[in-house]
Amino acid sequence: MRIDSARSDQLQEWESELSAQYQRICQHELSLDLTRGKPSADQLHLSDGLDGILNGDYRAADGTDTRNYGGLEGLQCARELGADILQVPTEEVMAAGNSSLTLMYHAVLTGYLFGFAGNTPWREMKSPKFLCPVPGYDRHFSICEQLGIGMVNVPMTATGPDMDAVEEQIRGDSEIIGIWCVPKFSNPTGVTYDKETVDRLAQLGQFANPGFRIFWDNAYAIHDLEHQVNLPGIREATHENDTGDSVLQFASTSKVTHAGAGLAFVSASEANLASLKKQMQAMTIGPDKVNQLRHSRFFGEFTLLREHMQKHAQILNPKFECVQSQLEKAFADTDLGTWEEPKGGYFVSFNTRPGCAAAVIQLAADAGVKLTPAGATFPYGKDPEDRNIRIAPSFPPLEELDTAMSVFVLCVKLASVRKQLGML
Amino acid sequence: MRIDSARSDQLQEWESELSAQYQRICQHELSLDLTRGKPSADQLHLSDGLDGILNGDYRAADGTDTRNYGGLEGLQCARELGADILQVPTEEVMAAGNSSLTLMYHAVLTGYLFGFAGNTPWREMKSPKFLCPVPGYDRHFSICEQLGIGMVNVPMTATGPDMDAVEEQIRGDSEIIGIWCVPKFSNPTGVTYDKETVDRLAQLGQFANPGFRIFWDNAYAIHDLEHQVNLPGIREATHENDTGDSVLQFASTSKVTHAGAGLAFVSASEANLASLKKQMQAMTIGPDKVNQLRHSRFFGEFTLLREHMQKHAQILNPKFECVQSQLEKAFADTDLGTWEEPKGGYFVSFNTRPGCAAAVIQLAADAGVKLTPAGATFPYGKDPEDRNIRIAPSFPPLEELDTAMSVFVLCVKLASVRKQLGML
Repeated sequence: MRIDSARSDQLQEWESELSAQYQRICQHELSLDLTRGKPSADQLHLSDGLDGILNGDYRAADGTDTRNYGGLEGLQCARELGADILQVPTEEVMAAGNSSLTLMYHAVLTGYLFGFAGNTPWREMKSPKFLCPVPGYDRHFSICEQLGIGMVNVPMTATGPDMDAVEEQIRGDSEIIGIWCVPKFSNPTGVTYDKETVDRLAQLGQFANPGFRIFWDNAYAIHDLEHQVNLPGIREATHENDTGDSVLQFASTSKVTHAGAGLAFVSASEANLASLKKQMQAMTIGPDKVNQLRHSRFFGEFTLLREHMQKHAQILNPKFECVQSQLEKAFADTDLGTWEEPKGGYFVSFNTRPGCAAAVIQLAADAGVKLTPAGATFPYGKDPEDRNIRIAPSFPPLEELDTAMSVFVLCVKLASVRKQLGML
Repeated sequence: MRIDSARSDQLQEWESELSAQYQRICQHELSLDLTRGKPSADQLHLSDGLDGILNGDYRAADGTDTRNYGGLEGLQCARELGADILQVPTEEVMAAGNSSLTLMYHAVLTGYLFGFAGNTPWREMKSPKFLCPVPGYDRHFSICEQLGIGMVNVPMTATGPDMDAVEEQIRGDSEIIGIWCVPKFSNPTGVTYDKETVDRLAQLGQFANPGFRIFWDNAYAIHDLEHQVNLPGIREATHENDTGDSVLQFASTSKVTHAGAGLAFVSASEANLASLKKQMQAMTIGPDKVNQLRHSRFFGEFTLLREHMQKHAQILNPKFECVQSQLEKAFADTDLGTWEEPKGGYFVSFNTRPGCAAAVIQLAADAGVKLTPAGATFPYGKDPEDRNIRIAPSFPPLEELDTAMSVFVLCVKLASVRKQLGML
């Protein structure tokens, strides 16, 4: 099926065939959901040993009674776990509560209200802005939107953000004070940044506003599928470029143990951590150390964590294969869409022909298959070309996913044909 | 010992006697700590059944899989627990993470950045201010100080804040946009607000700035010692006065189960909760529901929680009695200081003669007894009369507390005499 070269009568014929198929599917009254980057119950079950693991012994190896107040930086053994995940020194890590999003929010708040490391608070600037590689993660964009921080789209490529565009923006605007990055198995494209991208990002601190910070949301640091993918270290790269203050790294165990009941981590230079801690100490006496101890006991050695992640991969692999195989079968030799084949993470990003994404999502919804709202992967919810759809295969059981993908594929075909016929 | 009526030679004699005693104590090289409002290990042990209580069953009664993402308002059964503690309807409660301080911070942030219920954000005012009943809780004051919100001292009385002073301030300044209250077993004075105070507080919303909010930090809602003390309901009082939006109530299980590993609660009107949720949803997907479920299972019925608190009281009672007995014995018929006799909570507040508190704290420190820093119970750390000292008897074992109180008493006497002699 190639839309661009199809004659009008061919398109008409396709439209009526596809419409008939679509009508039949609608009669099935499906109720399926591909919106949520949530672990499935099987995955969550892998960590059910967490509750009860302390066996009455609430003392950490360093003697801390985790049941009592104190310790803004988190428990030493939890910081070590974060350091293993992010591959950074333990003393540069804070271990926090159940959400890296919360840590990112507070980091943005620190920059906005008080400034990092003695730099001008962003709120005192005329028009502070973040660069947003698109498509990206909606919750990053929501933080900026809430605080009135501007957002400038830069395209994602197969190796990371378009670095020419990034550098050009920063050279042209001294009030660009941040960039959102999901450097490994990017949300939603699944791309892992290559060495050149990481190196060029590490050099930004040499000419950007001194308050500029890279928000390195390494949400899928250890979330590889079949093989381990290597992400070049941003810390090492910034150290080589003498820009160690320009980056803040984040990670969590949300998709490692229990989503929303795990640990979050931030890693940064001493100066950045000092700024962050100054803000956070007005807000909290410290994180839940009991849960930090649970996680530390549960994994013990980092090799156990790697083995644990392989069990996740065994559950996730068939789901990602299902998505790929359906897309491949339907669209391999067509001009109906493009997609990445991620080696890990939680999403598959699909680009329709221009102007079709919202229509696909609506058609799927009407057929009982929920997809992430159109535009969600762009700042302010506006996909300028109306092309991107984020598919989240992790949560539904495999059979449901397969059915949902059949509906998706049909909706893409139907919307594409209708668009070409001027029917949308 | 009465300083005011003592002749100079009598004071001299006391000074040399007390100095000699003090020198002897210093030789003991004590290392004791009365600073921390922390539960003791015995108290924490009461809740050691929390870890493992789920027994592999992570589903809440309403079917929620607590291991997965979602639910900004918290688990239904956790909200019910908060509603029981605060004696408010469940639908007006959000159950959150491990810290009510964090909830208060976010509530202040909501007022400051965005405004509650459509009112002007405080940051857009010329000089927004909170009323701070003093002495009070230093962490409340730190939130205001960090955000540059002004603070105006109002005196605490034996029935709550001096309401004449509160009303006068609010009538005289339309930019007073909040008041900090610890209404039951107030930190540090131990006072519980009486009905008249609660009623007058509830009326403030009738003439204060429409964005004015009472921050009702009910940290010791169920932390009675020998007998239950009744705090008149602020919610009922505001409803009677048609000022339901003027109050936000907070509570936590920090001094109920494990400090720093419990649950926090906020209760407010629908409009206030909507404002708070709007801010919080950019920051978090939701709280740790697994830990919420643990707490809900641990207590089950509210009567079990009451029984649990009685066990705390049995541990705390002898400690509060020790403090009272030492103070009584030393200062009953003197003019050296005044103090409250709290019926619950975590603190005993002692007022020295004017200008002596910092000296007492320094003398005690040099003798190996750590007290809360001078001024800590006042905004900006400035006790205008240098009188207030907060004693926290909960954490040390009884024998250590007794020793520490002996040192304290001696230091009060010595500092008082030296002050009168012009030696400070």
